[in-house]
Amino acid sequence: MSGNSFGTLFSVTTFGESHGPAIGCVIDGCPPGMELSEADIQPDLDRRKPGTSRHVTQRQEADTVKILSGVYEGRTTGTPIALLIQNEDQRSKDYGNIAETFRPGHADYTYWHKYGIRDPRGGGRSSARLTAPVVGAGAVAKKWLKQQYGTEVHGFMSQLGDIVVPFQSFEHVHANPFFAATADADLLSRMEEAMDELRRAGDSIGARIEVVASKVPVGLGQPIYDKLDADIAYAMMGINAVKGVEIGAGFASVAQRGSEHGDELTPHGFLSNHAGGVLGGISTGQDVTVSIAIKPTSSIRTPRRSIDKQGNPQMVETFGRHDPCVGIRATPIAEAMLALVLIDHALMHRAQCGDVRVDTPRIA
Amino acid sequence: MSGNSFGTLFSVTTFGESHGPAIGCVIDGCPPGMELSEADIQPDLDRRKPGTSRHVTQRQEADTVKILSGVYEGRTTGTPIALLIQNEDQRSKDYGNIAETFRPGHADYTYWHKYGIRDPRGGGRSSARLTAPVVGAGAVAKKWLKQQYGTEVHGFMSQLGDIVVPFQSFEHVHANPFFAATADADLLSRMEEAMDELRRAGDSIGARIEVVASKVPVGLGQPIYDKLDADIAYAMMGINAVKGVEIGAGFASVAQRGSEHGDELTPHGFLSNHAGGVLGGISTGQDVTVSIAIKPTSSIRTPRRSIDKQGNPQMVETFGRHDPCVGIRATPIAEAMLALVLIDHALMHRAQCGDVRVDTPRIA
Amino acid sequence: MSGNSFGTLFSVTTFGESHGPAIGCVIDGCPPGMELSEADIQPDLDRRKPGTSRHVTQRQEADTVKILSGVYEGRTTGTPIALLIQNEDQRSKDYGNIAETFRPGHADYTYWHKYGIRDPRGGGRSSARLTAPVVGAGAVAKKWLKQQYGTEVHGFMSQLGDIVVPFQSFEHVHANPFFAATADADLLSRMEEAMDELRRAGDSIGARIEVVASKVPVGLGQPIYDKLDADIAYAMMGINAVKGVEIGAGFASVAQRGSEHGDELTPHGFLSNHAGGVLGGISTGQDVTVSIAIKPTSSIRTPRRSIDKQGNPQMVETFGRHDPCVGIRATPIAEAMLALVLIDHALMHRAQCGDVRVDTPRIA
Amino acid sequence: MSGNSFGTLFSVTTFGESHGPAIGCVIDGCPPGMELSEADIQPDLDRRKPGTSRHVTQRQEADTVKILSGVYEGRTTGTPIALLIQNEDQRSKDYGNIAETFRPGHADYTYWHKYGIRDPRGGGRSSARLTAPVVGAGAVAKKWLKQQYGTEVHGFMSQLGDIVVPFQSFEHVHANPFFAATADADLLSRMEEAMDELRRAGDSIGARIEVVASKVPVGLGQPIYDKLDADIAYAMMGINAVKGVEIGAGFASVAQRGSEHGDELTPHGFLSNHAGGVLGGISTGQDVTVSIAIKPTSSIRTPRRSIDKQGNPQMVETFGRHDPCVGIRATPIAEAMLALVLIDHALMHRAQCGDVRVDTPRIA
Repeated sequence: MSGNSFGTLFSVTTFGESHGPAIGCVIDGCPPGMELSEADIQPDLDRRKPGTSRHVTQRQEADTVKILSGVYEGRTTGTPIALLIQNEDQRSKDYGNIAETFRPGHADYTYWHKYGIRDPRGGGRSSARLTAPVVGAGAVAKKWLKQQYGTEVHGFMSQLGDIVVPFQSFEHVHANPFFAATADADLLSRMEEAMDELRRAGDSIGARIEVVASKVPVGLGQPIYDKLDADIAYAMMGINAVKGVEIGAGFASVAQRGSEHGDELTPHGFLSNHAGGVLGGISTGQDVTVSIAIKPTSSIRTPRRSIDKQGNPQMVETFGRHDPCVGIRATPIAEAMLALVLIDHALMHRAQCGDVRVDTPRIA
Repeated sequence: MSGNSFGTLFSVTTFGESHGPAIGCVIDGCPPGMELSEADIQPDLDRRKPGTSRHVTQRQEADTVKILSGVYEGRTTGTPIALLIQNEDQRSKDYGNIAETFRPGHADYTYWHKYGIRDPRGGGRSSARLTAPVVGAGAVAKKWLKQQYGTEVHGFMSQLGDIVVPFQSFEHVHANPFFAATADADLLSRMEEAMDELRRAGDSIGARIEVVASKVPVGLGQPIYDKLDADIAYAMMGINAVKGVEIGAGFASVAQRGSEHGDELTPHGFLSNHAGGVLGGISTGQDVTVSIAIKPTSSIRTPRRSIDKQGNPQMVETFGRHDPCVGIRATPIAEAMLALVLIDHALMHRAQCGDVRVDTPRIA
Repeated sequence: MSGNSFGTLFSVTTFGESHGPAIGCVIDGCPPGMELSEADIQPDLDRRKPGTSRHVTQRQEADTVKILSGVYEGRTTGTPIALLIQNEDQRSKDYGNIAETFRPGHADYTYWHKYGIRDPRGGGRSSARLTAPVVGAGAVAKKWLKQQYGTEVHGFMSQLGDIVVPFQSFEHVHANPFFAATADADLLSRMEEAMDELRRAGDSIGARIEVVASKVPVGLGQPIYDKLDADIAYAMMGINAVKGVEIGAGFASVAQRGSEHGDELTPHGFLSNHAGGVLGGISTGQDVTVSIAIKPTSSIRTPRRSIDKQGNPQMVETFGRHDPCVGIRATPIAEAMLALVLIDHALMHRAQCGDVRVDTPRIA
Repeated sequence: MSGNSFGTLFSVTTFGESHGPAIGCVIDGCPPGMELSEADIQPDLDRRKPGTSRHVTQRQEADTVKILSGVYEGRTTGTPIALLIQNEDQRSKDYGNIAETFRPGHADYTYWHKYGIRDPRGGGRSSARLTAPVVGAGAVAKKWLKQQYGTEVHGFMSQLGDIVVPFQSFEHVHANPFFAATADADLLSRMEEAMDELRRAGDSIGARIEVVASKVPVGLGQPIYDKLDADIAYAMMGINAVKGVEIGAGFASVAQRGSEHGDELTPHGFLSNHAGGVLGGISTGQDVTVSIAIKPTSSIRTPRRSIDKQGNPQMVETFGRHDPCVGIRATPIAEAMLALVLIDHALMHRAQCGDVRVDTPRIA
């Protein structure tokens, strides 16, 4: 509970600050015998890394991951897998002017009050840069889930500010800079224009991301307090800038009737998925569907009122290199978090009930 | 992670089934020396208990709590506080017809697939009845938080189906059967009528509940993975029937600009609270504001398609005594969960940074 | 870590005080589908309970256990199993004289300094009476281990004061009041006489207990920090009055040479068991052998120097009903603790590596 | 519980293998604001490192520690402190002959059965080399304990094989290669000769190490299951090659009477310390005294019987660079483990009971 580990049986402990020498994590509990190399991990890191389009921060980081332990002759040994990523582009001078002042919407104020000290270089520990090691750990989890059960986790952006982006197909997600699941050129143009306008205005915008896990085994999740959906909510709300989480029908459930919401079953499967793949905290075997709200980036060039450590009023403008929409790079992060929740519950389920029988007669 | 304990430093382990002999919990980690008796706990249980109006289940349960341990001469001793509630009204025959069939929207299907066995009497372990011990534990947490920091936690219903219920004042919450924070007689009538109509129709409806914690100390919450808001999301999504959680501006953040969302600071305090009292996972000292979506009750009299254990199609109607809107009784539960998260973080903060200085110059 | 739960995947949370209304525990993580009733648990409680011979405390407690949850139609459901034991014989007046004074060798001094409050009735929470619920939980663990792997856990007293009691056979353990694994009538007489002399003298004595687990699967235990032997040491040192723990050769290893200590292997098995069934923190499949030192009972009639809460010198004699050798009743407790460690590691191993293959070609 | 983290509130997660690129750890929960640099950590690592005398392994490792995170401008920030130590001398060819055969007394057999794969290079994860990062973490804990309470932790060797080494003074510990607390030249010569003889014989020997913590605050430790002494036993038994742990009088308690064992109190302090500074699992304020048994090194040049992966009989001689007495380098490791237990309990106590009042009227 010291705040830097995620998961119980497949646990990830991260370390590092935005402008320190390196960031990384220790993955404890990865089952032995799985083929693993950096090549399994780097692609997800590349999807998250900065500088891939003009719509994200221009900070240059290769985010090259190195495995320090836990793999022998190309296979996991059951011992901890340490991942290390060197920080390269540490232009700390960019941030010098904010060491004494609390940026609105940032963790500056709370870290300083909590700890009495804070590392102001690039947001220090509170920087979204710290999601990189987790994306690495998520790639390891994804590989195991895929091999073991065929489970896959995919995300996409479904809303950018007030632009709703209907889902067409996962195949489009990597053909545009927004992780939008659409090939609608007009819509994509509107998104590009909105981002360009924001950048000129020195402002930022929120986003909505959806994540879907398919071929999830039936039976993952614990009753009462380690419900699968509760752990998903925890994982998602813990991502920087997330302010809301929905499972299945989410807030739309409020206005639904029971005769509409409750998913009927037939011998051929469920007839709907308002539950989002979770009933009573336990997976149904349907797709697990999650939606998250990401607030607009707090680092903006628009001058804003704040105070300094002494309580004096100050105006704050944040220069430097920032994402005008942190939601854009959130898709691989949300996928990683969902994969980490699923593998933890898969291992837990195996502990309690023995090997998951993937050949269980399933309805979908 | 075995699924029946909540919290780390102030942990609550629950046990029991809807129709077993008793339900209860063990509270471990309550600081010593606090005056405590059943009289501190019973009022919150009474707010949650069934049978208090015609709009909730007519099951008759006194829900009388008994403290079995951890209190000596009227004060907590620092040792575990066990709470016991006898089950009285166990009309199990009401449920006999559902032992073989999976009720849509219920945990029947998932429990059976996970464990290969399930207690069908009143939903067994998955019954919302199991929130009673937690409400008891929450009352203990509330008392300590109030004494230590002046922190208070209050909830109310803000939406019933499509009826939005604007907040007027917390003083109205206990003057109506819905925990609505309003004295608007017309609105309350519409709610009554909607509920009466539903009951006649044998259907159910969702609800939205808001919870607010005031006078929260600055600095509660851990960076990265035990963020205060992440733990709140976990706590809330773990309540039976919850499908969505928001902190502060929640999903409205998606369409907000950074220049609107980021709460400005002045020497006299924050100028807004889109953050919902949490920045970077750590409390700001502002009100912590949470909103949750509760799905419509799955137990309805409307016939629905399902299957039995052998996979044969079946029609299911659920008779017995149910809440047409489980959201109505959710308010004290959500309060309890928020209080439990706050006390856990308060103790954690004390571990890491020493006693919270409540006299810290605070802005609000 | 709040101090009242044992185990991670098969966790036991206890509550209660020596003279409160009841004591008990919640077992979380018991695999589903196992036949279980009070009849499986009561025999171990009966072996531990007071009043079974003149050599133990004459407090009268039936220690009748009741299962409150987690079992449906005679089988475990995978949900928490709560065990409740009513306290019957609460002669608190016996202890009235010690409320203000710290008894030497007791937890009075430390509880009072830690918590600023303590329940002095019969030692309150620090009473060895609190081992009863754990013995109950251990019986559940034993049953599962036996069914799953054939694992059995048996203990015996190997030394009473300076009387060494050589092991003859487990069959003798329940034919004498000491849990001695011997049928040597002379030796048993000497033990009886020694105890009678102690009782007359108003003094007490220490003991050594051995516990052996047989048919332990190969592979239980985690490297580095959750080593099987480390968890055993933790479990055993946590039993009231234990001051030392050995695995295998224990302290005799200090004077051994590597050519003597390291157990050689042949195709037919290990040739010795100095390791005590654990290498590198992981079970070898040989018997797991543990030895513990139990200090003499601190409650004695001999007057001793102490101080009261105000720091004034006081003489203390402890009247009431006490065990002149707490070690006598420790055997079933030590068995229970070893069983609890083994089941936790068995479940953990299953999480990480899948179902244990009990048909693995094993050497012993 | 995945086996590679130690501690709850001050937790240390280690990674790495003996012959991998690097080893290290992540310390989570170090209180903020403490001055810290590599210079605080390196001295303890230097005391543990190989090659410091002819009596320990001649492997050459600088064991230079680097802090990767958690420190800003020379002070801890409350965020994770990652320590990295590069492996330099990785002569893996030394170990090539043992990849297929299980060395007696080693973890080879158990790792292979547990995981189905093992890294044989220098013992892989099971190597005592993995104690290095923990010694680093222990140095951080020691510094905090010293600053906060004046607590110090010191160890020494009290027995080498059958040579008992009486305690004279801690000042002698670093004036000889054995961490012996003696200046007795004859005794030290006998130890040198015994080691030289062993080396010539290609054999090894066990040792006993004592560790003492002074100025421990009263009140550290949790009742029932996270007793201070139970956690110490866990920590010590988890050190490579440890087979026994004693607190205070330890196994001598078996033959003691209550009138001898129970430490009397006077207004000026305790009159003895058979308890070893712990009563009822909670520190008394006296010295915490611990004694551990370390088995003889399993890697010896004497040929021994074993089997290979296929179960065929094999003779094993272990060449390469080994410690003929692993106990020699165990002293700084045992100190580190005791410090880690103490800091964890100090933080836990602070969580539950608020800041420790070091000015409490104490008796010693």
